[in-house]
Amino acid sequence: MYYSRPVARLIEELSKLPGIGPKTAQRLAFYLITTSKETAVNLAEAILEARDKLKFCSLCANITDTDPCGFCRDHTRDPKVICVVEHPRDVVTIEKTHGFKGHYHVLHGCLSPMDGVGPEDLSIDKLLARVKNAPVEEVIVATNADLEGDATALYLAKLLKPLGMRVTRLAYGLPVGSDLEYADGRTLVRALEGRREV
Amino acid sequence: MYYSRPVARLIEELSKLPGIGPKTAQRLAFYLITTSKETAVNLAEAILEARDKLKFCSLCANITDTDPCGFCRDHTRDPKVICVVEHPRDVVTIEKTHGFKGHYHVLHGCLSPMDGVGPEDLSIDKLLARVKNAPVEEVIVATNADLEGDATALYLAKLLKPLGMRVTRLAYGLPVGSDLEYADGRTLVRALEGRREV
Repeated sequence: MYYSRPVARLIEELSKLPGIGPKTAQRLAFYLITTSKETAVNLAEAILEARDKLKFCSLCANITDTDPCGFCRDHTRDPKVICVVEHPRDVVTIEKTHGFKGHYHVLHGCLSPMDGVGPEDLSIDKLLARVKNAPVEEVIVATNADLEGDATALYLAKLLKPLGMRVTRLAYGLPVGSDLEYADGRTLVRALEGRREV
Repeated sequence: MYYSRPVARLIEELSKLPGIGPKTAQRLAFYLITTSKETAVNLAEAILEARDKLKFCSLCANITDTDPCGFCRDHTRDPKVICVVEHPRDVVTIEKTHGFKGHYHVLHGCLSPMDGVGPEDLSIDKLLARVKNAPVEEVIVATNADLEGDATALYLAKLLKPLGMRVTRLAYGLPVGSDLEYADGRTLVRALEGRREV
């Protein structure tokens, strides 16, 4: 035993965080032990408060401390468009652009047979129930631009199109301000396919 | 407000940790919110327990949940040699080598006029009191191999040598297994100065 028990326990718990290896866990543990007591206690209480107060919105499955969440309660937002994302953090990413004023729906993952994630593991039932009870005209599937994200978009399109709504996907193409020289081949092919009239 | 209040608070508290930027703080926050409740609560409780139970050893100033600490109470260790380190984590680093069986003393920093750290900010008084009451023959100053570490070693030598004990410093030189080609110049100069008979 190189550490006294409370130190060892703290390092062990910190190591469980994603992207935190044993070295970083040790550094963070010693920081938490030697910094002001207030800083350490505030962090612990913030974790406990988050777990105590946060739940999933019964409509859009986003993380929230009220139900329905702030987005679902906001009547200035367009109820005819729903943007489907994989994770709660994606809602924040899109909100920060100020480029979308519709509603959101959080899947909590995407279809991935390799990882054993099927439709029943995502909040797809909730999405179906929701679009049946609301005047939704378009569902934008903003899952990641990878194989699983594409498969999830196709699956949702198959379910939602028969209900009479448009199902769209975020555009693939060159990042704004990027140099053609450094674009990867697959992105370039998609940018060509998605070309638009000037 | 892109986040509900408990999420914003958790991200803010996580951002205060050293080396954790806003992106990582957001990732960790969403992990703590969506992982098993047990994992999150265990971490919070480990932080609170550490702050509640840990104190500084009254002899060596190491972090401990007992006083005196396990090292100071261990009668199999050699009381004639004290290894002085900057931080509690350095004790762990040296212990892991299994190459030292004396006692430790933790300074909690090193002399750094630039950062306003003087002798009174370190546990130097404690070290002096300790060596006067014990049969110490050698003090190994294992502060970092930088300017501040060197200055601290010189300062301690000036205080301790008149008390009749040897004050030594860890050897500078080439890392074991290293290639001469990749050694930096300053290390190489120190390795030449510290050369030994074969």
